[in-house]
Amino acid sequence: MTSEVPGTAPAEPTSRGVSRRRLLGVGTGAALAGVVAGVGGTYAAQRAEGAASPSPVPGLDAPVPFRGTHQAGVVTPAQDRLHFVALDVTTKDRGQLVELLKAWTRAAERMTAGAEAAPGGVDGAGPYGVPQDTGEAYGLPASGLTITIGFGPSLFDDRFGLADRRPAALADLPAFRGDDLDPARCGGDICLQACANDPQVAVHAIRNLVRLGFGTVSVRWSQLGFGRTSSTSTSQQTPRNMFGFKDGTNNLKAEDPGELEQHVWVQPEDVTGTTGWLAGGSYLVARRIRMHIEVWDRTNLQEQEEVFGRTKGEGAPLGQTKEFDTVDLAKPGADGQPAIPVDAHIRLASSKNLHGVKILRRGYNFTDGTDGVGHLDAGLFFIAFCRDAQQQFVPMQRALAAKDALNEYIEHNGSAVFACPPGVAAGEHWGQALFA
Amino acid sequence: MTSEVPGTAPAEPTSRGVSRRRLLGVGTGAALAGVVAGVGGTYAAQRAEGAASPSPVPGLDAPVPFRGTHQAGVVTPAQDRLHFVALDVTTKDRGQLVELLKAWTRAAERMTAGAEAAPGGVDGAGPYGVPQDTGEAYGLPASGLTITIGFGPSLFDDRFGLADRRPAALADLPAFRGDDLDPARCGGDICLQACANDPQVAVHAIRNLVRLGFGTVSVRWSQLGFGRTSSTSTSQQTPRNMFGFKDGTNNLKAEDPGELEQHVWVQPEDVTGTTGWLAGGSYLVARRIRMHIEVWDRTNLQEQEEVFGRTKGEGAPLGQTKEFDTVDLAKPGADGQPAIPVDAHIRLASSKNLHGVKILRRGYNFTDGTDGVGHLDAGLFFIAFCRDAQQQFVPMQRALAAKDALNEYIEHNGSAVFACPPGVAAGEHWGQALFA
Repeated sequence: MTSEVPGTAPAEPTSRGVSRRRLLGVGTGAALAGVVAGVGGTYAAQRAEGAASPSPVPGLDAPVPFRGTHQAGVVTPAQDRLHFVALDVTTKDRGQLVELLKAWTRAAERMTAGAEAAPGGVDGAGPYGVPQDTGEAYGLPASGLTITIGFGPSLFDDRFGLADRRPAALADLPAFRGDDLDPARCGGDICLQACANDPQVAVHAIRNLVRLGFGTVSVRWSQLGFGRTSSTSTSQQTPRNMFGFKDGTNNLKAEDPGELEQHVWVQPEDVTGTTGWLAGGSYLVARRIRMHIEVWDRTNLQEQEEVFGRTKGEGAPLGQTKEFDTVDLAKPGADGQPAIPVDAHIRLASSKNLHGVKILRRGYNFTDGTDGVGHLDAGLFFIAFCRDAQQQFVPMQRALAAKDALNEYIEHNGSAVFACPPGVAAGEHWGQALFA
Repeated sequence: MTSEVPGTAPAEPTSRGVSRRRLLGVGTGAALAGVVAGVGGTYAAQRAEGAASPSPVPGLDAPVPFRGTHQAGVVTPAQDRLHFVALDVTTKDRGQLVELLKAWTRAAERMTAGAEAAPGGVDGAGPYGVPQDTGEAYGLPASGLTITIGFGPSLFDDRFGLADRRPAALADLPAFRGDDLDPARCGGDICLQACANDPQVAVHAIRNLVRLGFGTVSVRWSQLGFGRTSSTSTSQQTPRNMFGFKDGTNNLKAEDPGELEQHVWVQPEDVTGTTGWLAGGSYLVARRIRMHIEVWDRTNLQEQEEVFGRTKGEGAPLGQTKEFDTVDLAKPGADGQPAIPVDAHIRLASSKNLHGVKILRRGYNFTDGTDGVGHLDAGLFFIAFCRDAQQQFVPMQRALAAKDALNEYIEHNGSAVFACPPGVAAGEHWGQALFA
């Protein structure tokens, strides 16, 4: 991270006589050049112009543009690491909350560009000032950092005058069969999703945004993810989940903008009138799925493959040979029964089984130590983006909850839904249209 | 990870007609070539021959040799990620424990070479067999994985006939002023430290070793670390801790074998008679140090720098200008008082303040979600290696506990000590000399 962003003065010697420029010895002019080129105009107009084409896959260290038609961190090729936080707003002062959204926007834009959270960084406030950046990412590259904001249903109660701005689809998820939800891992007024290829960069981003929010918001829950479990670009290999299976083979991909418009981005006709602020945004569904890996690790290969409906090594649909072979739900196996069992995970989650429903998965593996009885507290922090959480995620999860063979080995213990607004154009801040 | 290791048969087509070789398309002959070249002879003889020179810094993906004079994962240039687990032995059958140590050695050697935990990997046991590798690291490179084993004081009780083999220095740490230890985060009969540049590889290693231990050991506690906080080689830059400061500038380094012999490796004269199995080993001290980052983040720069005794940006000792300038504890500041305050962390931890005591630090930053009152549960998982835990770590921690200015911002809530045996030579297994 460096203190240099376009338009700031060159780094001056600090009180200790060492300039940050000399400290770091890294120029970021080229890396930052694209950051301030915001995208203007309405979402509908941008869509017509094809401005929503996906970003190229960045190098592991490179920055991802912060401003644009859509927020980064949705169809951005999934980075390796995650820090996700759900926050409650503790103020009742609408103006104070808006000021925080402005401050967050400034800090998020800087950090995604590889700079510190505020000009001057750790020592810009002088010896008697509180450092405006906490410092642990000093000297680290941008690492593909994206920061994505979402607003939960509870934000639209009577505190901030937003009740008529809540889209109908932004509602708490219904109870699903088998849910074992911990209230301390559910809900939240606001979420911030930081993804990066270096976990220290993701943690630094969340920590500094939380720091900016002292007195205005407080942390409700948070989750680190150490390994991505889905690809969101055809340029990426399919990663594996903690059960050892490839996950997300048939995920929606950034390279198919038509599918994204249909299944991921909220369309102008979905949100008319006072809910129009969400056009070009997306719903984020988060589910903390604990995996009982010690039980799983005692089951045989055939059981494991029949639960998922894919081979473990290659990841081919059962009855086929290669990972990307078309899933044929009707094809019989040697015994005349469907090769992909009737309760297999990929059958139940298939768009063919769900009248065409598709979602964009963007989850992460987690391991949060031990549960106190000698088992690893590990699993999948499921994140999905969709155009309508109620019409897409809910029927899919109902189908899975009803009879997915995987249910024997997993447990949903956290849940939340948020509406992520569209991207910010030049000069705009997070939530500007919502609070206008 | 691939299934090919020297001496195993070529991969055969599996029951689904897909060979693992074709699945993975990766040869590992060159990478594995060095793995089986073990080092023989006594530690004293090896030391005389200079066999203990440090390994070169591997690429992020490359394997680190498993066998050698010392265990890997001590002076190996610190990898980026950690999964550490403390285990209790649940069997009372000494033979069963020894069999586990043999099985662990085989699996650890394979995994550190980039192979699966057992020949055949996920489908080598056939459709009706339980996969002998859990699969989530399939296709990932070795990623510099090291797995280091240690034995805790409690293993030397009356269960396994080891009481006379416990070195005097392998004893529970005394209580320190300010300790707030959680028994669920303390102690353990055995520890396994997995370090790698990919967290999924480190988690996979621990998970598969724990799986092998079902019925023989159970997890007592575990800890993930996402960012290293010390360099152990002059080839590495000094990383930053969660307070934003460089940590470990004056750490012992792999490039100084004389210092390592004096401060890190247990010498033959330290462990005579029935405790001789530990010659060439080292003591591992683990401390889970919660950092109250929300409080820290409200303090000004001068306070922060005076607490550590270094500048935040450059990491220079106060009164000096560059990170590696010599620490001068006597140099006065502008006010005539010592530039490095009398209660500064680096003064109290300095070898000059401790009659020459030095330790090898190899800790990791952690963030384990939220503590339930809106604060991040973050800090430093401190790991140190030393020749004698009682003579080195204990006086250092006593000095710090007594008056370190940092104590206002931290809390030690986990603690353990283990004796890590020397490296395994060709044909040997972990604990062989201990159980001989």
